[in-house]
Amino acid sequence: MFEAQFQTFDDADERAATAARVERLRAELARRGLTGFIVPRADRQQNEYLPASEERLGWLTGFTGSAGVAIVLPERAVIFVDGRYTLQVRDQIDGDVFEVAHLIETPPETWIETSLSAGAKLGYDPWLHTTDAAEKLAKACAAAGAALVPTEPNPIDAIWTDRPAPPLGPVTLHELRYAGEDSAAKLERVRGEIAKLKADALVISNPQSVAWAFNIRGADVPHAPLPLAFAIVPREGRPALYVDGRKLGNTVRDALEELADTREPHIFARDLAAYGGAKQSVRLDRASAADALAKIMNQAGGKAQSGADPIALMKAVKNDTEIAGARAAHARDGAAVVRFLAWFDREAPRGKLTEIDAVAALESFRRETGRLKDISFPTISGAGPNGAIVHYRVTRKTNRVIAPVELFLIDSGGQYEDGTTDITRTIAVGEPSAEARARFTRVLKGHIAIATAVFPEGTTGAQIDSFARQSLWAAGLDFDHGTGHGVGSYLSVHEGPASISKRGAVALKRGMILSNEPGYYKAGAYGIRIENLVLVIAAPPVTGAEKPLNTFETLTLAPIDRRLIELALMTPEEIRWLNAYHARVFETIGPLVDAETRAWLTAATRPCGAH
Amino acid sequence: MFEAQFQTFDDADERAATAARVERLRAELARRGLTGFIVPRADRQQNEYLPASEERLGWLTGFTGSAGVAIVLPERAVIFVDGRYTLQVRDQIDGDVFEVAHLIETPPETWIETSLSAGAKLGYDPWLHTTDAAEKLAKACAAAGAALVPTEPNPIDAIWTDRPAPPLGPVTLHELRYAGEDSAAKLERVRGEIAKLKADALVISNPQSVAWAFNIRGADVPHAPLPLAFAIVPREGRPALYVDGRKLGNTVRDALEELADTREPHIFARDLAAYGGAKQSVRLDRASAADALAKIMNQAGGKAQSGADPIALMKAVKNDTEIAGARAAHARDGAAVVRFLAWFDREAPRGKLTEIDAVAALESFRRETGRLKDISFPTISGAGPNGAIVHYRVTRKTNRVIAPVELFLIDSGGQYEDGTTDITRTIAVGEPSAEARARFTRVLKGHIAIATAVFPEGTTGAQIDSFARQSLWAAGLDFDHGTGHGVGSYLSVHEGPASISKRGAVALKRGMILSNEPGYYKAGAYGIRIENLVLVIAAPPVTGAEKPLNTFETLTLAPIDRRLIELALMTPEEIRWLNAYHARVFETIGPLVDAETRAWLTAATRPCGAH
Repeated sequence: MFEAQFQTFDDADERAATAARVERLRAELARRGLTGFIVPRADRQQNEYLPASEERLGWLTGFTGSAGVAIVLPERAVIFVDGRYTLQVRDQIDGDVFEVAHLIETPPETWIETSLSAGAKLGYDPWLHTTDAAEKLAKACAAAGAALVPTEPNPIDAIWTDRPAPPLGPVTLHELRYAGEDSAAKLERVRGEIAKLKADALVISNPQSVAWAFNIRGADVPHAPLPLAFAIVPREGRPALYVDGRKLGNTVRDALEELADTREPHIFARDLAAYGGAKQSVRLDRASAADALAKIMNQAGGKAQSGADPIALMKAVKNDTEIAGARAAHARDGAAVVRFLAWFDREAPRGKLTEIDAVAALESFRRETGRLKDISFPTISGAGPNGAIVHYRVTRKTNRVIAPVELFLIDSGGQYEDGTTDITRTIAVGEPSAEARARFTRVLKGHIAIATAVFPEGTTGAQIDSFARQSLWAAGLDFDHGTGHGVGSYLSVHEGPASISKRGAVALKRGMILSNEPGYYKAGAYGIRIENLVLVIAAPPVTGAEKPLNTFETLTLAPIDRRLIELALMTPEEIRWLNAYHARVFETIGPLVDAETRAWLTAATRPCGAH
Repeated sequence: MFEAQFQTFDDADERAATAARVERLRAELARRGLTGFIVPRADRQQNEYLPASEERLGWLTGFTGSAGVAIVLPERAVIFVDGRYTLQVRDQIDGDVFEVAHLIETPPETWIETSLSAGAKLGYDPWLHTTDAAEKLAKACAAAGAALVPTEPNPIDAIWTDRPAPPLGPVTLHELRYAGEDSAAKLERVRGEIAKLKADALVISNPQSVAWAFNIRGADVPHAPLPLAFAIVPREGRPALYVDGRKLGNTVRDALEELADTREPHIFARDLAAYGGAKQSVRLDRASAADALAKIMNQAGGKAQSGADPIALMKAVKNDTEIAGARAAHARDGAAVVRFLAWFDREAPRGKLTEIDAVAALESFRRETGRLKDISFPTISGAGPNGAIVHYRVTRKTNRVIAPVELFLIDSGGQYEDGTTDITRTIAVGEPSAEARARFTRVLKGHIAIATAVFPEGTTGAQIDSFARQSLWAAGLDFDHGTGHGVGSYLSVHEGPASISKRGAVALKRGMILSNEPGYYKAGAYGIRIENLVLVIAAPPVTGAEKPLNTFETLTLAPIDRRLIELALMTPEEIRWLNAYHARVFETIGPLVDAETRAWLTAATRPCGAH
């Protein structure tokens, strides 16, 4: 059978150990004269995926979800999680130790205002919170008559005796044939942006931006080839890259030294303080820069200018080489996905496959391309009611045998040097219900509305988000997540600054790659999502047009399950789009797969409806 | 012929006098030790339409547009206007006295930063700027090393010797049969909002909110029945209404005294200071409260809490009586508009009608209802290229004879005690071009997309705005304004807080009345807009719906010009909507008009297409 190498299915169970850990933390806090301490799920660079050494929240509480915060006081401890994790958290934490609060409805700030006593000192690690976040906490503490106290080194590190070592993943060069623009040219453009911002220097605190600017990749966190490193780019003069020297081979070091000084990470704070001492204005990324950085700058007498990371937009707009790479990666990935879908259709109806089997098979087909570097996130593989859990992660305990009649949802992606992929397919095992077909069709209509949208230059993601919902709305349905996120080029599968969502305030520019993934989730029953990646391109010219127009090219190539489509709900234009898409899937993927798979693909992509 | 009573067509020409006025202002400023002074187009309550006594900007500069700011320095003077007025301003001002700057691209803040010298003192009247606006100006002055200085009384008033007296329009009671909820009940609900805001009192500075809360109307500004008055509503105890006693007859005074203390306007500041002295927290409306109010509160030791006016949302959600009134007002107004359209179709092809004739005729038909209190804004009556000027106001100088072949755009509304109307129709005189028909049809498709939109409770105007644009976008076209604004109930034709536009962040709630008015403007050629008012209502129930759904009921009843519709561009659903709308227009308006008009209406509303 197949095997998953990039994903585990363990049921983390730290619960039994957490009561003692919390007690040790309280003793440590008392020793330091602190009333309490706040523990976010975060590292120093606000990464989405954390190295094991940064999983302080998980170690302290047992909770393994992707978002959460804990506060430990002498007599109380509380963990905040959002709606996705309200069930999971009760399963993972020790209810005698932690109360549970809702991260959105009663966020830490609200809790602090009512729960902290006057005179209390709440510690926080200024390296793990952005300045905006720290300011909110400070305000809440002040409202309670308490104080927020920067606390270094992190008290958890003092008591976490078997804490894993920080990662030392080797840094590699991201070759020009993938990057499409050499680092010197990128840094020149970055300097132009620094000048526009009237800053003296830019701190690059988002590792995605470090990787992009220096054309390097790393291996420090799961699923994204990020090097944990900081950089400072002065408006004039030589940039400095702060990275553990043990991560650098000679070739890489030599190449980097042509562009920048490479320095050990502990030098970073000292150099930053030197900018402050010289009264310089340094731009910090509001979204990823730790509060500690602003403190260092300001205390040294400089000016920390907080705002958007200018690299985020530059990185989001892919160049021709990256676009060609994305198309190649999607053909390759599509072939692996099609092999999986064909295999799944043969095996699933026998009623023996599990969700974990599906993950392992899909990863194996991707690995067999010979080019897979990692999966781009832990595969979501949910059958029936598990498919209705929006961010479901299968473990040995939750693993479900896929029944001969149910919907199966699989959301996955691959990291290839030429591109990052992300695709969701919903598959009918057995005969789907009329309701499931109707709702799948409405999700598909939303997907097609985005795929075919034509919009003037300057249009934001927020302005088109509702196109994906309109058909669901008409039936009194909706989905409680954004329609699409930005995707990196052999980088993070979630990247800013653009998105297709209510909050997508950034204009969609040609060259951006985003996901198009409307869905529908029926709790306890099934989940539906149809996700392709799309590239913003110029729309075909229109006579009389007064504005430059954009549209999307769909990059992802794999069949959409025809058995779930209610043709009576589709317009002729929608059916034409679907048939044209399936024809392109067959044309591109057909030559890349074995005969048995190709036979399956022929059937899966044959035109719908009578024309 | 017809005559317009509520609108003039004069070409204001103050230009010749402005150089001397500016010199007198400079002398007055020097006397007061000020370097310069900033003159917004605003009164003390940030009204859209100003009484003549508040037209300081027009008096000083000659400029009569609806938005603008001037700054006068010893050697320079500048006027800022937006894109709508760049041509008009050069026509109206003395170019030897004033430079012209772009209000949006180089706003006063930017100009101040680069044009004020260190040590300069720029005066501003704190009654004419909101606190947010004043803070921006102060920041810009500080960046220039200058200071922003509150200046009372306004130095223009000191030199404007023939300044008109402030208005003393009589206050009338807005009867319960129109208001639908008595003032005592409204004030009780307002107190509930004050408690939710944790404030001790609410200052009502928006006259629309004063009128709504106390069920009164006034006659102080053109086109909106607003009483210029302030109010303070304490969380507990008796409200106070600050209004010139000369505006109150005995009946009105007695009715008001049952609800509140009525006090003279000059007491307002003293009472507000008393709240401050008692260390109370008073809520001020961020959008309409003058900076002077926050200053009074804070200097007296209280806390000015700036935020949204809670009455804005209460007022926007119409009750059943107001909704019934709106339907009645729209039937009555529709009959007047239909009489106008029939008359216009008879007269226009002869090539003798002017834009002013059309305004006068339409107003006359409305007056003949016997119920018209005022027009709700100066009618926009634009033929051919004049129709392409988005906020065109016809004067004797610009007045155009309507050619036998061109498009004519007319945007108008009426104030009736039971409702405020606002309607735009675009009419083909002679045979329209294929281009005009195609573009009109795309605007109509956008109009229908809004009219038929179905969306879950909680959806904002921003989320549906693009539905109105999608069809234009597909042809490389767009319109550079919002799709819709809120409309009052015998109040301002533009009211907050909801809108259908990119910035419409407020949820559309059942009972709100908004305009639905996509358009298309071809500079130098023609303008198109199709505007109906719509009411947010519950959508018909849908089986399986998981969310409460809303949709719109179209209130406005008048034919949409069939001669401008290219049926080949319409879907069958769109044609069905149009035919059903026209059938409803005929059913409702037919019985209200004379036989000749009814014959015209029969033809104008006959079904399109073959079914």
